[in-house]
Parts: sequence; C-alpha cells; structure tokens
Amino acid sequence: MAGTLWLIPMPLGASAGLSDVLSPITFQQIDAIRCFVVETPKVARAFLKPALTGALTERQWLELNQHAPTQALEPVIKSLLGGTDVGLVSDAGCPGVADPGALLVARVHQEIASGANIKIRPLIGPSSILLALMASGMNGQSFAFVGYLPSSPDERGKALIRLQARSAKNRETILMIETPYRSKSFLQTALNHLAGSTQFMSASQLSLPEEHIVSCSISQWRKITVDKRVLQQLAEPTVFALLAA
Amino acid sequence: MAGTLWLIPMPLGASAGLSDVLSPITFQQIDAIRCFVVETPKVARAFLKPALTGALTERQWLELNQHAPTQALEPVIKSLLGGTDVGLVSDAGCPGVADPGALLVARVHQEIASGANIKIRPLIGPSSILLALMASGMNGQSFAFVGYLPSSPDERGKALIRLQARSAKNRETILMIETPYRSKSFLQTALNHLAGSTQFMSASQLSLPEEHIVSCSISQWRKITVDKRVLQQLAEPTVFALLAA
Repeated sequence: MAGTLWLIPMPLGASAGLSDVLSPITFQQIDAIRCFVVETPKVARAFLKPALTGALTERQWLELNQHAPTQALEPVIKSLLGGTDVGLVSDAGCPGVADPGALLVARVHQEIASGANIKIRPLIGPSSILLALMASGMNGQSFAFVGYLPSSPDERGKALIRLQARSAKNRETILMIETPYRSKSFLQTALNHLAGSTQFMSASQLSLPEEHIVSCSISQWRKITVDKRVLQQLAEPTVFALLAA
Repeated sequence: MAGTLWLIPMPLGASAGLSDVLSPITFQQIDAIRCFVVETPKVARAFLKPALTGALTERQWLELNQHAPTQALEPVIKSLLGGTDVGLVSDAGCPGVADPGALLVARVHQEIASGANIKIRPLIGPSSILLALMASGMNGQSFAFVGYLPSSPDERGKALIRLQARSAKNRETILMIETPYRSKSFLQTALNHLAGSTQFMSASQLSLPEEHIVSCSISQWRKITVDKRVLQQLAEPTVFALLAA
C-alpha cells in the first residue's frame, strides 16, 4: 500500500498557532506524518512543532521552494511509493495555491495515472485569497486570482486597466497580491488608474488579530486614503481585489 | 458600538460535523452570535446546533437565498447597527463564494463606507473550490472559478473550448461546478471536446470520508472513464478543473 500526500495549510502569520486555524481532527492527523516537504524549514518547523510528539529530528524534512524547485520531488515519490505518508506545507496558507507546492502534487498525479496507489488529501485551513474573496462582498460566482502585477507603476497601471476591462466583461472579481513593501505604491497606482465606480478592496493580515479590511468604490477610496491605519496595515501581507461596475 | 458580521463556513456534506471542519476557537466564537442569516434554515440549524448553548429558538434566523435575495438585508443592517453580532452561513462551504451571501457583505460595506462602525470577519473553513485547486496539481499562481457552464451539451462543449483557449493564453487553471445529476454528462462533454493534452480534474465529496479525486490529461481520462467508482462519485457534489497544455 502506497502512502498519502497530505496538503496541510499553515497559519497566515506568527500571531496565530496551528491549533488556532485547523480543526482538532486535522491537527491530530499531522502527528502520523513522518516526512514533511516544506518551503522554509525554520518557518515550517516552528508552526508544526505543537502538533508533533517526539523530537523534530525524528522526521524527515525536505525543501521545495524557488531555490530548490524540483530536487525534492524524486525522493518524495520514492517515500510515497514505499508507503510513507508525506505532508506538504507552505510558509503560509494552502500548499499548491500561489506557492511552488503544485509541482509536487502534479508529479504525484503522474504516478497515480501510471498505476500507483498514492492518495492525495487536501486539508481544510486558511487561505488569504479565499478569506479576501469572502470578505469582499464582490462577485463570488465568478472570480480569478492573477498573482503579482508588474512592479513598475506604469506597467502596473496598464495591467490594472486591462484587469478592470476583463472584470467588466465577465462580471468577474479579480484578486491580486503584492509584497508588503510595494503595497502602498500598489494602492496609489490603483487610485490613479481605476474608474471611480470600480469596487476595490485591500485586506491585510487576514485571520490575525490585526486583520483590517476596506472594500468600497475607488471614489470612496480617494476620500479615505489619508487614513493612517490603512497605510500602516499596507506594510503587512495584503490581498487586493477589484470588481468593475 | 456596532456589531460584527461573522462569515462562517459550513461542512461540505452531512458526513462531517461543524467541529470536524472549524478550529476550536472558531467553533466557540459561534455561540456568542444571536442572529443567523442562512440559505436553508433546516440545513443551517442542523450544522450549527452543536455549537449553540440553549434553544435554537432563542436566536433570530433570517433567510437569504435565491427565493428571498434581498428582503433579509435591511433587518440585518438594523441589527448590526444596533450592536448585535450576526453570523452569515451558506448551506455548504464559505459564505460569499458561489452563493447569495455576497449581497449582504456588499450591503454592509456600503454602511461602513457611510461611516458605520460594523466589522466584517471572515472565518477559516472548508471551500470545495479551494480544496479542489490544492489537490489539482494545476497552476495555483493563476486560476479562475467560472461557476456553472451551460446545461445543453452543445453549448457546454463550446464553453469548454473557449475556456481551454483562455487557460492556454493565461496559463490559468479554470475551476467549474456542476449539479450532481448533470456531472456524468459534463464529464462526457469534456472528453468529447477538450484536447488530449489538456489536464482535467474531477474532485468529488471533498473533505468527506468518500472523497475521490482524479487529475490527469484528457488522453489518460479517455482510458479510465469506464471506472465504476468514478461514475458513482460523479453523482455527488463535484468540482471540475482544467489546465491547457
């Protein structure tokens, strides 16, 4: 019998623990896993420690990230085929969503298609993209996540205008992320380029005590951007969304 | 002080309880809520009962669904402005995602933009769309949910071909849902119209004991569709996904 690949969501920040974001059943399942595939070992070990009995060194820890995108794949496949359960985790949120973990899941599906009896089990937990969509009040029947926009304000402005047109055409909520140190500049570009009637959201530190969500029209945003609290929050991980009128 | 609108995810089927899918902190928060806005009262009460002390009749229950899309909104706004905490729930999964709940969230954002001190708090829990994306092994850096496709096989086939072209252009994973009684016909249309190299997934009964996930190329699908287990699973709630090669 081959092993199972468990896809384990992680908290969205250090101010939440793993038991704060997973159900007791999910939390308990983690202890049976002997091999973890992680994005950043230090981050993953700190989050997983409360769920694991015994020393962390008794488990196998493999890296899968942008610096080591594929070298972990073959040893993991071997472990799974040999009957070992493997846990895949990101630094934050759901593995396979806006992170390199999808490479491993795709590789395991190839093995399954070739006859291997490996199971893939996605577990319930936090996703900043999904929490942002829920909180946006925008269209949840049709939405898209497009990741990062270009970093130059000019190119980013053009991308936002294209996304606004796409949103208008499909009645589609568009979700985007930005690195914290560029979020203020991102908001400024949105305020400069988007139509006044377009709905726009910033959602910072989702699921954490410091959570801060603003969702209103660009015209309304233009009145409130001097708000110090909004600017302060933008220095933290933030999801943005837009919906054209 | 105005109340908080809590967005509470529900289990994805009757074989999971609320405490199986929410963290203990989230589960405990629910008991403080005095007013619930629900899609189907019977379904919501059955799921919420274990989290609530005292009789269910001590809480206020309002309906927000396709038959009563907006009449619940004004009493809820009044309750929130008066300081009452309100819980918004769908029949399954996350409120505001592929359900009518987004109408209420949007209405509350309008009040906030006009100066009301209402808070919106999305809670962590199950979403079949997100679990399907995690388990797909497809692109998690760029994805879209497009809801239901047309029910006529001809129109659905054309829609799938358009979505495949869009997926190829944007390297975008496309997620779709179908009602259980049409899922077999949906799969047949996909096998008839999509390119052999396109990746295609069906993910049924996600997060439940009967979970069943198949993700491989259309060519590989064409070899396995006689599998009885796959056809049986398709009679249950299923998320489909595609990614063009």
